[in-house]
Amino acid sequence: MTDTTTRYDDDARGPHAPPPPPAPASAAARPVVPARGTRRGAGLGEVAFDAGGFWGDRQDVNAAATLAHCERWMEELGWLENFDRVARGERTVDRPGWQFSDSEVYKLMEAAAWESARSGDAGAEALFVRLADRVTAAQDDDGYLTTAFGHPGLEPRYSDLAMGHELYNMGHLLQAAVARLRTAGADDAFVAAGRRVAEHVCREFGAGGRDELCGHPEIEVALAEFGRATGEPRYVEQARIFIERRGHGRLPVRPLLAADYFQDDVPVRDAEALRGHAVRALYLTAGAVDVAVDTGDDGLLESLVRQWRRTVERRTYLTGGMGSRHQDEGFGDDFELPADRAYCETCAGVASIMVSWRLYLATGEAEYADLIERTLYNVVAASPSADGCAFFYANPLHLREAADPVEAAGVHMRAEGGLRAPWFDVSCCPTNVARTLASLQAYAVSVDGPAALSVLQYAAGNVSVELDDGRLAVSVATGYPHDGTVVLSVTDAPATPVTLRLRVPHWARRASLWSTTAAGGARRVDAAPGWAHVSQVLAAGDEIRLVLGDEPRLTWPDSRIDAVRGTVAVERGPLVLCLESPDLPAGMEIYGFVLDASAPPQPANDGASVRLLPRPGRDASGGRLPFGPCEDPADGTPAQRPDAPGGQPAEGGLEVRLIPYYRWAERGPSTMRVFLPAST
Amino acid sequence: MTDTTTRYDDDARGPHAPPPPPAPASAAARPVVPARGTRRGAGLGEVAFDAGGFWGDRQDVNAAATLAHCERWMEELGWLENFDRVARGERTVDRPGWQFSDSEVYKLMEAAAWESARSGDAGAEALFVRLADRVTAAQDDDGYLTTAFGHPGLEPRYSDLAMGHELYNMGHLLQAAVARLRTAGADDAFVAAGRRVAEHVCREFGAGGRDELCGHPEIEVALAEFGRATGEPRYVEQARIFIERRGHGRLPVRPLLAADYFQDDVPVRDAEALRGHAVRALYLTAGAVDVAVDTGDDGLLESLVRQWRRTVERRTYLTGGMGSRHQDEGFGDDFELPADRAYCETCAGVASIMVSWRLYLATGEAEYADLIERTLYNVVAASPSADGCAFFYANPLHLREAADPVEAAGVHMRAEGGLRAPWFDVSCCPTNVARTLASLQAYAVSVDGPAALSVLQYAAGNVSVELDDGRLAVSVATGYPHDGTVVLSVTDAPATPVTLRLRVPHWARRASLWSTTAAGGARRVDAAPGWAHVSQVLAAGDEIRLVLGDEPRLTWPDSRIDAVRGTVAVERGPLVLCLESPDLPAGMEIYGFVLDASAPPQPANDGASVRLLPRPGRDASGGRLPFGPCEDPADGTPAQRPDAPGGQPAEGGLEVRLIPYYRWAERGPSTMRVFLPAST
Repeated sequence: MTDTTTRYDDDARGPHAPPPPPAPASAAARPVVPARGTRRGAGLGEVAFDAGGFWGDRQDVNAAATLAHCERWMEELGWLENFDRVARGERTVDRPGWQFSDSEVYKLMEAAAWESARSGDAGAEALFVRLADRVTAAQDDDGYLTTAFGHPGLEPRYSDLAMGHELYNMGHLLQAAVARLRTAGADDAFVAAGRRVAEHVCREFGAGGRDELCGHPEIEVALAEFGRATGEPRYVEQARIFIERRGHGRLPVRPLLAADYFQDDVPVRDAEALRGHAVRALYLTAGAVDVAVDTGDDGLLESLVRQWRRTVERRTYLTGGMGSRHQDEGFGDDFELPADRAYCETCAGVASIMVSWRLYLATGEAEYADLIERTLYNVVAASPSADGCAFFYANPLHLREAADPVEAAGVHMRAEGGLRAPWFDVSCCPTNVARTLASLQAYAVSVDGPAALSVLQYAAGNVSVELDDGRLAVSVATGYPHDGTVVLSVTDAPATPVTLRLRVPHWARRASLWSTTAAGGARRVDAAPGWAHVSQVLAAGDEIRLVLGDEPRLTWPDSRIDAVRGTVAVERGPLVLCLESPDLPAGMEIYGFVLDASAPPQPANDGASVRLLPRPGRDASGGRLPFGPCEDPADGTPAQRPDAPGGQPAEGGLEVRLIPYYRWAERGPSTMRVFLPAST
Repeated sequence: MTDTTTRYDDDARGPHAPPPPPAPASAAARPVVPARGTRRGAGLGEVAFDAGGFWGDRQDVNAAATLAHCERWMEELGWLENFDRVARGERTVDRPGWQFSDSEVYKLMEAAAWESARSGDAGAEALFVRLADRVTAAQDDDGYLTTAFGHPGLEPRYSDLAMGHELYNMGHLLQAAVARLRTAGADDAFVAAGRRVAEHVCREFGAGGRDELCGHPEIEVALAEFGRATGEPRYVEQARIFIERRGHGRLPVRPLLAADYFQDDVPVRDAEALRGHAVRALYLTAGAVDVAVDTGDDGLLESLVRQWRRTVERRTYLTGGMGSRHQDEGFGDDFELPADRAYCETCAGVASIMVSWRLYLATGEAEYADLIERTLYNVVAASPSADGCAFFYANPLHLREAADPVEAAGVHMRAEGGLRAPWFDVSCCPTNVARTLASLQAYAVSVDGPAALSVLQYAAGNVSVELDDGRLAVSVATGYPHDGTVVLSVTDAPATPVTLRLRVPHWARRASLWSTTAAGGARRVDAAPGWAHVSQVLAAGDEIRLVLGDEPRLTWPDSRIDAVRGTVAVERGPLVLCLESPDLPAGMEIYGFVLDASAPPQPANDGASVRLLPRPGRDASGGRLPFGPCEDPADGTPAQRPDAPGGQPAEGGLEVRLIPYYRWAERGPSTMRVFLPAST
């Protein structure tokens, strides 16, 4: 965590090298398999989260409820029938759904494929096949496949590349095909359809073809991974062409919107930070990392690492959320991080994890896994309701006016945050959450070369990986994130020395690690934020105990973030906490206080207890105009004004509890804030 | 300023009473002539601003440069030819301009009409006639007149009422016709075209017609005033129908946007504050005030006063700017007033003045004139460049990244603020500024009943009005807004007592008023914020001296405005000041300091001088992640971090100058902020 230079692995193979030897079968089912590098993520068969644990529970709800929920909504809204109509050759009149609705079907298929591999759930397999049949029937002979263009009654193919999302849709189809190939292990009809799509795209947009771009990146990361999965370097090459083609002003500037919306303002390798539409920027970056890694483009990779760092240091919320503007669903300027108008789209959280994961695999740095953890607990986990059938789209850190419950009843037209909705007019988030949860254990550990395992995310469960000299298996016992102690028990190990690396989160300033052998020897290992590791011969019965601590703590924001000056947040472990109106006395407004920063927050259930004090004066409510009390030139002090209505704590203070942010709005419409005005 | 109850005049005539007797000819040329009430605004012939004064200069530049600038751009872009093509009956292919481009032509015509009356400028008259000929030639036999619908090659009439802007366009035509009728004094061909438009609208959308609404309010305020100008109560009645029809969900909810965008979520009289798209909300409110006043609907008027008050107290910027969100170009929630993402569209400033002026005429309260002053100096005056040929569209109070000068060269697609542009793709602001400047003296004074004159806005010039017992004429000498002393010299007066009311701005806490008679007697008059007045027989040579003061002052924002907590603004007279990067030493960032709030700001040229101190620590730049330094549980104090790059003042402080906000970005692309982090 203290090294600021860029490092990444390079196994010295040249560009377009063939993929490395396949991982063991249990490791094959994973979303990202770089062609180079000595580090690999876990296959879905190598890690299992315990049922009833934080993530295991969410995975089970995802499988049992969310997948069917998504299919039902898409059927009801006609997004699935769009494929049938094309397959039947019918003329389309008033096609339902946005031009990107196909992609939701593919993300659901991807989720079903991962889920099938994760749990062996026959329902997920049946869902995949059911959808695949309808999708593949709509493919044109030349491989083109979308339901919004190029068929009777629709605009011609590629007539609106900026906003048409055709390549975006086909990109998500390819990601579903990657999941299918790596989980079913077979080159079935859907994978074959994917090959035809990829060939079509290379033919149409390759060298000598259309010198154009899709307005929404996605095809890049998809072609790269499909190329990896199929061993076809031409697909990776086509991804490279798209990456290099971007940033030269091919896409139109749109009225009233920012120039960088499409990331077509600056070449990818020349950019300084992520900018414009957040999901677009992040999908593009994920694809660019893939291209940089697979082609050995070290300059590009270094640039992407720099961009990630500046983005995380200056354009990322405490929750890990990205996207400071509702306008353009976009990043803001450096330090433009308003809590109230934070967009922090759930999909941007998913996409941020995609980028961080690729950079972790390329570099092995803990900071990427740190951000993945922060984003998983405070963005992705915040989105779905407990029953898996309603979702947050935007994830603001402050809501002043409670949402209207009526709005959540049906298809939600808006994305303001405040109430989870079953479906959205633009419904990218539910299926993105689904595919992420279904494959979540892939991000939990990595195998680093011949004899090392890194544990990145802590959850009760089991890990079993094949190292060069044999199997390493550990069971993980923890109440994380609500308990800061993680106990790893070795159940199987090679006879030769192995390295076990444990990530120590940046917030765990006083972590400790104890390694105890089955024979009874115990020693304390250095555990500063970053990595703690044991390198030795391990044996069944050995135990490694990581104590990260779980005291709530105050987190002071960077003073350059104007929007939260004079406030403080409270965190506990990896969880950002928040104050929600149901936890305030009746009649007290969410702004009627300051937090007593001299009193340390105390643990309380899964959150914390803090003391609130009356808000000091200085407001305009005593006047008629909002321009604030004017300084009286006579004495130079700001006028103290009577307070506004809304109620305040008594002079002696008021203890209130903060809850984990991911659980807010579970008790109905509410107001909420993460950053609390602080006493000074 | 201390009375919080709602009061307005009621002359006890019933609804739909005929208009009051006409004002003298010199008073006829004014934009708002309520059918009821004892108070009237000045005619353009009753007030003249001195050439070279603050507003006189801007009016002259407007006449000499802006009107021609706007005509030239609209000719070049084909927005004028749109009328010719319709007149010729040609089929339209690829019509240039948005569906509301017609309205820019009408706003320019309105400006030309006022300008012609203000200065007698033959060029302005010729411009009006030139445009009127082309516009009227495009009118359909039944009165319908737009160039974006209902003609060969275009969509049918009223096929997209939500976004088509047909009634909006025709509303602006009617406002141009009002200006023509009241300045030329004749019912010419253009006014006749206006009558046909109004009749068409009443026929089409009246009782028994289409039960629909235009997505962008404007027709309401236009029909009401055209009804007043022509003495036709059916037009006011149609305005009333549109006001009552709104708020029942006739317009569609749009994806990803706020429900209140069109103000169709809540009936006008039931709303609590202005909300949604700011210009839409303000135009609607202006029309609603007109309807309430003319129909004697006291309940509606009281509601509108309440809405204005809450909007001003909780949703209005220090500059008077309205619109907290780029998304939807909209109002935010209460206290959602980010400085950086302030939209504060110039047109919303114009529209806010329209509302405040109508409420002033209805109630006579000084607070409305206060807000008009604030908005004129800090929004409207900020928009045009000194040469009158470039304009701000958005008026943020904080810019972190300097604009790209290339962007300003041609038609500006965006509205981010930071650089004035000659024209915009959506170019509503230039013509709105033009029509406001051309008629500005109408807002300077009011005649209140038979024997009283209120002076509302201070500018060097002359006022001459007919009271019941004779002419009252005063000359005004002042360097306002840069000098806080205003001297009124009586040059003519009736032989009977008159009341002269002078507005004392809310910020002038220690104002004094001296009344001196030609005979040599002098007395001091009470001059607390609100009104100061003398009621006596006046005579030529009498002098009234109002001393408002012009010391710069600190203005502390309401503590409920999260976005500017811990900051302070500096104002001087009616001017909001700002710190702009050219006034900082090279290398110092716009965030690298705090203002020393213990040192009173000092006058410096037309702005102020303040002392900056180094910014105290507490930022994340020493770490790798942006999550802020964590409190160390051991000692409970926030970690102090080394500072970020960017330069800071030396320990002893640094004197810098602040300039009036309206002059920012005159020295090329810059960063800027109004609210300065303050030492505590």
